[in-house]
Amino acid sequence: MKHFRHELWFNTPSRRAFVNSTPQVEEALRDSGVREGLCLVNAMHITASVFINDDEGGLHEDYEEWLEKLAPHEPIKRYRHNRTGEDNGDAHLKRQVMGREVVVAVTEGRLDFGPWEQIFYGEFDGRRRKCVLVKIIGE
Amino acid sequence: MKHFRHELWFNTPSRRAFVNSTPQVEEALRDSGVREGLCLVNAMHITASVFINDDEGGLHEDYEEWLEKLAPHEPIKRYRHNRTGEDNGDAHLKRQVMGREVVVAVTEGRLDFGPWEQIFYGEFDGRRRKCVLVKIIGE
Amino acid sequence: MKHFRHELWFNTPSRRAFVNSTPQVEEALRDSGVREGLCLVNAMHITASVFINDDEGGLHEDYEEWLEKLAPHEPIKRYRHNRTGEDNGDAHLKRQVMGREVVVAVTEGRLDFGPWEQIFYGEFDGRRRKCVLVKIIGE
Repeated sequence: MKHFRHELWFNTPSRRAFVNSTPQVEEALRDSGVREGLCLVNAMHITASVFINDDEGGLHEDYEEWLEKLAPHEPIKRYRHNRTGEDNGDAHLKRQVMGREVVVAVTEGRLDFGPWEQIFYGEFDGRRRKCVLVKIIGE
Repeated sequence: MKHFRHELWFNTPSRRAFVNSTPQVEEALRDSGVREGLCLVNAMHITASVFINDDEGGLHEDYEEWLEKLAPHEPIKRYRHNRTGEDNGDAHLKRQVMGREVVVAVTEGRLDFGPWEQIFYGEFDGRRRKCVLVKIIGE
Repeated sequence: MKHFRHELWFNTPSRRAFVNSTPQVEEALRDSGVREGLCLVNAMHITASVFINDDEGGLHEDYEEWLEKLAPHEPIKRYRHNRTGEDNGDAHLKRQVMGREVVVAVTEGRLDFGPWEQIFYGEFDGRRRKCVLVKIIGE
């Protein structure tokens, strides 16, 4: 069994952002030499998500608006978590809706994707360096 | 390490539907010959979900009503994504709540399930052919 | 390829609870002898979740309040599922928001975690014994 580990780093200039990370994951897969197996991609920080959906700007604005309605950023004091001095209580909730991780099949050396599947990093408390882990196992 | 890939195809007659796909995944597992490992089942389309829950009709109606409240289908122009000519903006949101994929343990040649776990295909923009991927690795 | 299976059991005294289960998963990983691979942790019951987030009491109260707003427990008859004699319709919805499972990378014999990642059991219909499955594959 082969195994491969790679870190992707992000530092988004805004509090919230969606970043298409598919090319970096594909590059990690090539470096791994794995032809058949599973590829885990997960946020290592708990106010960020990794998810798969469409690379369409309007949709990302819809997600932003929808998540803000489900778990508003303000008022800051709305969240007990923010009593610790943080202002990211909402980000911990948004991340649960969008998910921590994706597991992607690897087939014949490629991410085994449907026609529009793309891997996104979802940032809900940005403006600092955060890490995504890529772990690939297989043969 | 063994690996096995299988596609399940769906074409639901209604826009939204939940389809119990456990028998097809079990059949794929038998065909794979894997006795110990992991089984990934994921929607390959981004307006559909794969999730695990109860095979109970009332619950599925509850899901339908709840998701429609969280992300209403109409008005169509509510979603920026629909400016592309689509009418499925809501489906991209519903799919995030219900999830893209499940990973199931394989133990002694069987899906290692609790008493009521069943695998569902969740369709949120149906009336066309869509694919679910089953990828099994192990030994 | 090595494989390892372990069950964690919970019986929370309240209907809803979040229990940090990281030490038990780490112990299972040590027992497995796996140094590189993937670790699946999933609720085997469909009114419970396994998720990764922060071990901070205020945040857990925020989750509790937020989930109760998204899918209120009462009135019981609000949910068609409860016509079966159950009163846990809400728990099936809450579990979808928080998720069934996590997949964690195993690197050099350890859960490959970011600085604040902790594995939680999320109970939404407690006061009875329920099981979480840990399945580890790798080498």
